[in-house]
Amino acid sequence: MSDATIIYSKDPLQTYLDDAASGKPAPGGGSVSACVGALGAALVSMVCNLTRGREKFADVETQIQDLVVRSEAARAQLERLLQDDTVAYNGVIDAYRLPKDTEEQRAVRHKAVQDGLIVAANVPLEIVRAAVEVCRLAKIAADLGNPAAVTDAGIGAILGEAAVQGASLNVEINMASIDDVDYVRRVGAELQAAIDESARLRIEATKITLDKLPKRKDGHGRIDH
Amino acid sequence: MSDATIIYSKDPLQTYLDDAASGKPAPGGGSVSACVGALGAALVSMVCNLTRGREKFADVETQIQDLVVRSEAARAQLERLLQDDTVAYNGVIDAYRLPKDTEEQRAVRHKAVQDGLIVAANVPLEIVRAAVEVCRLAKIAADLGNPAAVTDAGIGAILGEAAVQGASLNVEINMASIDDVDYVRRVGAELQAAIDESARLRIEATKITLDKLPKRKDGHGRIDH
Repeated sequence: MSDATIIYSKDPLQTYLDDAASGKPAPGGGSVSACVGALGAALVSMVCNLTRGREKFADVETQIQDLVVRSEAARAQLERLLQDDTVAYNGVIDAYRLPKDTEEQRAVRHKAVQDGLIVAANVPLEIVRAAVEVCRLAKIAADLGNPAAVTDAGIGAILGEAAVQGASLNVEINMASIDDVDYVRRVGAELQAAIDESARLRIEATKITLDKLPKRKDGHGRIDH
Repeated sequence: MSDATIIYSKDPLQTYLDDAASGKPAPGGGSVSACVGALGAALVSMVCNLTRGREKFADVETQIQDLVVRSEAARAQLERLLQDDTVAYNGVIDAYRLPKDTEEQRAVRHKAVQDGLIVAANVPLEIVRAAVEVCRLAKIAADLGNPAAVTDAGIGAILGEAAVQGASLNVEINMASIDDVDYVRRVGAELQAAIDESARLRIEATKITLDKLPKRKDGHGRIDH
């Protein structure tokens, strides 16, 4: 069981890393995916903070001001999900502990497990949604932001995609036990769309990034991402 | 200038996220990529810790014991690089501040800048190397580890690949100003090989992960990563 009293963001980064490496149930891959998405959102905000208020980039000031509001909102949401994910599965664990002696108890328990699984799947699903947004924002940052920070925008898109892919696996593991076929079909389609969109955005953002760097002295093309 | 006295791993996770989002020069995309690689290594260690010492997995005990030694070594290295990257560019900044009034001063300054750029490029290059190793270890963990934690192994590979891609962009931005054509050619080829290997390993690890999950109730295939 995870200890709900731990607020991971207030603990040292080293504690978060050590707890992730340990056999403790939290933080696991879902929380870590949210953390990676939050780091991607942070890099988008950094690009905005190195762009706004500068004469040189006055023509994109309004768009950058809008962008940093969105990236900070995505970051705050992913930081919340980083924490929420550490207790998302508790409802399932509690449900499995319900008595199963009578037919009626078994029915109540089954329903509670199924409800818990949907709650548990919805947390990484929210991580997926917020991380796709990080990819969208990172591409805008690569396009419009201070070129001196363009690799940070590109890395933001890379981390957004990784968070989408990572959290998707945790939605899948919960979905594997969910009986509600409509839910499974709908969420499965949403995951696929999120994976495809984030991959496209990451490829576009990386291309914009590499195109903005000065040419290499060996005359060779860039690495192919 | 980054403040070399800050030890990021000892600061709260929230501080690391906030500083990444700020206009401060550190931590930037390189350090964040190292952090993501360290999180991936931590997830591999977690899978090992949920596998070793259990009767059920006695047949892979030796391989898992070897794996956790390697994943903890990769994690320690990436945690060190997370810190090192925050000062990697300081040598370049110091070199640019050297006097440039005489021909001789300009030659000394140019040499110092070039040397500084190679030092600065080598830090994200080391991140790339350690993160490829995380992908290798994550695939082994997906293959041999406790199936209950298989998504954590898959996510480990995803984060390893993201760290390779992210740190590669920071090698590229330094390489753009490096005159040593042999260095640029050699490192460019190494980056491409690392990107290709980590992509292959991530795809393989994700496939192993999805294949180990129970079939979904909607009868549909898994999401295609």
